[in-house]
Amino acid sequence: MTIERPSVLQPEMPATRWGDPDHATGLPDGVRDLVGLVFPLQGTPARVEVSVPASRLTDDQVAGLRAIVGADHVVLDDRLRRQRTRGKSTPDLLRQRAGDLGDAPDVVVRPAGHDEVVAVLAYAAEQRIAVVPFGGGTAVTGGLVADPAGLTGVLSLDLGRMRGLLALDPVSSTAVLEPGLRGPEAEALLAAHGLMLGHFPQSFEYATIGGFAATRSSGQSSAGYGRFDAMVVGLRVATPAGEVRLGSAPANASGPDLRELFLGSEGTLGVITEVTVRVRPLPEVKAYEGWRWESFAAGADAMRALAQSDLLPTVIRLSDENETAINLADPTGIGGEGNAGCLMIVGYEGAPAAVAAKQAAVTEALTALGGDPQGSGPGEAWAHGRFDAPYLRDSLLDVGVLVETLETATFWSNRENLYTRVKAALEESLGEGTMVLCHISHVYATGCSLYFTVAAPAGDDPLARWLPAKAAACEAIVAAGAAITHHHAVGTDHRPYLTAEIGEVGVEVLRAVKQAVDPAGILNPGVLIP
Amino acid sequence: MTIERPSVLQPEMPATRWGDPDHATGLPDGVRDLVGLVFPLQGTPARVEVSVPASRLTDDQVAGLRAIVGADHVVLDDRLRRQRTRGKSTPDLLRQRAGDLGDAPDVVVRPAGHDEVVAVLAYAAEQRIAVVPFGGGTAVTGGLVADPAGLTGVLSLDLGRMRGLLALDPVSSTAVLEPGLRGPEAEALLAAHGLMLGHFPQSFEYATIGGFAATRSSGQSSAGYGRFDAMVVGLRVATPAGEVRLGSAPANASGPDLRELFLGSEGTLGVITEVTVRVRPLPEVKAYEGWRWESFAAGADAMRALAQSDLLPTVIRLSDENETAINLADPTGIGGEGNAGCLMIVGYEGAPAAVAAKQAAVTEALTALGGDPQGSGPGEAWAHGRFDAPYLRDSLLDVGVLVETLETATFWSNRENLYTRVKAALEESLGEGTMVLCHISHVYATGCSLYFTVAAPAGDDPLARWLPAKAAACEAIVAAGAAITHHHAVGTDHRPYLTAEIGEVGVEVLRAVKQAVDPAGILNPGVLIP
Repeated sequence: MTIERPSVLQPEMPATRWGDPDHATGLPDGVRDLVGLVFPLQGTPARVEVSVPASRLTDDQVAGLRAIVGADHVVLDDRLRRQRTRGKSTPDLLRQRAGDLGDAPDVVVRPAGHDEVVAVLAYAAEQRIAVVPFGGGTAVTGGLVADPAGLTGVLSLDLGRMRGLLALDPVSSTAVLEPGLRGPEAEALLAAHGLMLGHFPQSFEYATIGGFAATRSSGQSSAGYGRFDAMVVGLRVATPAGEVRLGSAPANASGPDLRELFLGSEGTLGVITEVTVRVRPLPEVKAYEGWRWESFAAGADAMRALAQSDLLPTVIRLSDENETAINLADPTGIGGEGNAGCLMIVGYEGAPAAVAAKQAAVTEALTALGGDPQGSGPGEAWAHGRFDAPYLRDSLLDVGVLVETLETATFWSNRENLYTRVKAALEESLGEGTMVLCHISHVYATGCSLYFTVAAPAGDDPLARWLPAKAAACEAIVAAGAAITHHHAVGTDHRPYLTAEIGEVGVEVLRAVKQAVDPAGILNPGVLIP
Repeated sequence: MTIERPSVLQPEMPATRWGDPDHATGLPDGVRDLVGLVFPLQGTPARVEVSVPASRLTDDQVAGLRAIVGADHVVLDDRLRRQRTRGKSTPDLLRQRAGDLGDAPDVVVRPAGHDEVVAVLAYAAEQRIAVVPFGGGTAVTGGLVADPAGLTGVLSLDLGRMRGLLALDPVSSTAVLEPGLRGPEAEALLAAHGLMLGHFPQSFEYATIGGFAATRSSGQSSAGYGRFDAMVVGLRVATPAGEVRLGSAPANASGPDLRELFLGSEGTLGVITEVTVRVRPLPEVKAYEGWRWESFAAGADAMRALAQSDLLPTVIRLSDENETAINLADPTGIGGEGNAGCLMIVGYEGAPAAVAAKQAAVTEALTALGGDPQGSGPGEAWAHGRFDAPYLRDSLLDVGVLVETLETATFWSNRENLYTRVKAALEESLGEGTMVLCHISHVYATGCSLYFTVAAPAGDDPLARWLPAKAAACEAIVAAGAAITHHHAVGTDHRPYLTAEIGEVGVEVLRAVKQAVDPAGILNPGVLIP
């Protein structure tokens, strides 16, 4: 087939905030007043505007890169280098707002396709330039911050020109996507064929296919459509040692599954240049509804029962008591009535008969387990606002409220222990006035994720307040024997904790693989691998 | 919990045949007559009885091993070394029958648990002794044949004393199993708690938990319960470089999933000493039924439709026209009536309401797709004889019929091409009188496995007839771009074809990992890694 490209591209995000500036609404007055009841409001500090540091690349290096991708696609200008500096965690935003551009890449290079990526990697290896693959720029764990020690500079490998649907196999239900496609762009290309991917993480509107694969992203419909890594059937990866093509079949016994080595490799083992994914027919019906539970434990037990009966709907998420009271799904309703207990959102998507059958079976099960149906109102409210939380974070940061999220996963029998430990660690570190909210949004037969949202007074130096709190939460996660991350990835922020999770031998294995595919150590140095 | 051990152990298999000698029935006379209509029958060649070669280990080495596991568990006797020679492929059986014991291990060592495995590996690395992990001995691709070049001998690391249920977490639905538990033993231990694993490959009665993990086994209920690798949530692995414990959560984004590196590693990267698996309630209902399709393509399209609608039953398998006519599920019915078209077996297991709902939905779908329901008779016949095929192979080998199986997997759009190529390659290589049967027994949304059974006159030297046929089939699989194995693993037989599947860089990655965890190169040398 001819390569198909999206007709509408998502806008670029500004360096200091999330999303589309035209979409940001700020805090509604009523919400601002309510927030003011809980947190001391501050004015937004003046933005510190500084220039990005001078590029460390030599003229010869710039010329060498231009020879590969063309002069237009080797970009040294301030604006683009600023936008390619770090990701969108709260620390990233705070540093950008404070004018800290110390991690700015020296150059932004935009290859047109796999072959140019291969050539850029070869040149960067020869020149000892660090390469940071850049997709949507939505990283929240420091995955875009390379350590250039011993290297000559940092190259942001912007995959934004690689936004094609390369192939579609409707019989096998697979599509080959380029890594630079953002979520809505990929879905639009597939929708033209009546198909979809069905991967809707919080970052959906800006994050890219390559990033989903490189970080093991998980979306809001993971109960029905699976994690992103479970959707991947094939990968093409450019490494300094050569190309890797994987995915001879949906599953095989041809030794270790090397797809699972490059999935989650966060740019340290190669640049993912093509992703073959399972696609599905667009759902004819979508129905989202609310259920109320007496407690977080009761709701979690119900999720567990569904997962262990292989009776999961498409979407299932459960807010704890605090999150239910605040109702992030509908911030205009903060402080409203009917926010007691714990709210669960249950969503069904698919063909009408299949949805009806699943909905009937799940409804029967949840009713038997003590759930109180709330109708479609809460479900529609959630669906309406499902990608808005990062905008709200910006607005809260503007008025002096420190807001950040973190997540983990564990087995069901450890859920309560993990929840209690992480919550206590955050509250203790941040002190009085801290609000910790939590939800479960990814469930498995054997366990679930826990996703925490933290809000606290920003104080004079919110970064100095947040970093020890994050460390305390990570230590609590490790102490509980849980995963340091369920879907945000390791990056630089979680790197100190990876050894506790995979052991010294596991780390040695990663180092050995890296040495084999990237002997010059140019690929995202300092990220992921301890 | 206290470690629980099976009260009844599966018997040992003889060196030259499959299974329990008391269970082997030989060919019923009627079947023998029918087979004689197709193939020229021969008498069973006299078994050649030779002694195993003298052990190459020194007295000091034997003493060193005895110091680790105890004198009783360092076994040099002829019988056990003979039984630990190779696996149960047709070439393995033919070599054993011909008295070829060239690959016999020099010693059989039986560790009691993880710590003894660690100590044996350290000693073997120091002494440069090849270590072949041995579970059920059911390997069919040469995974038990180590190449001792440059080493001082071959040690069969028999995991048969490690047969414990180490832990059970009923809340999370997980169990920690030792690697030496055979399928029925593991199921019996779990059944005592009302639970099951649900992994029923053809080798179920003899193969072990460790082997299932090390080879990425897939069972007859894979549509409902998943491949074995998908059941695994945690692994403990002993390597010469140290221990690896993996599985912090059902899923995570903590970098590459190293579980998927040790799954399928076939003893080359470590010895799996504990496997944490998802368990399920024992099904209250089991129903198996037959469906008839006009053609293999029509039946395959129906399987595809179910898989792509996420509407799979617990068991689904489809025989091609040849296999349907022969009806391996019921060899006493060979040549009987009603064997036109293609037979599909569909099985449902679970709670009554869930089974009824699934059965109704699948029945509606299959009917709409043109399937012809055959009632429970064919299903019950299949279920009754599901583990008997390897016994039948022995009986056919006895009368001069060469019988072997091989398998592969691909995406749906390539199914027909792969089927045609492999069948033609086998028929061309083996010549007139060859019968090639095929079934699909593992399906995914994006593709399926193809499992071929080949029967041909054995001639004077069946091994010399089979090896080029197998090579031709492998080359056809590679040419079709399919997986060299879906669930039989790579071993030594498929090793020449692995580079075609994962590429030079993929092979370099495996070598780098091996060098990191097994610098002395003692773990199953010559297996898997080209």
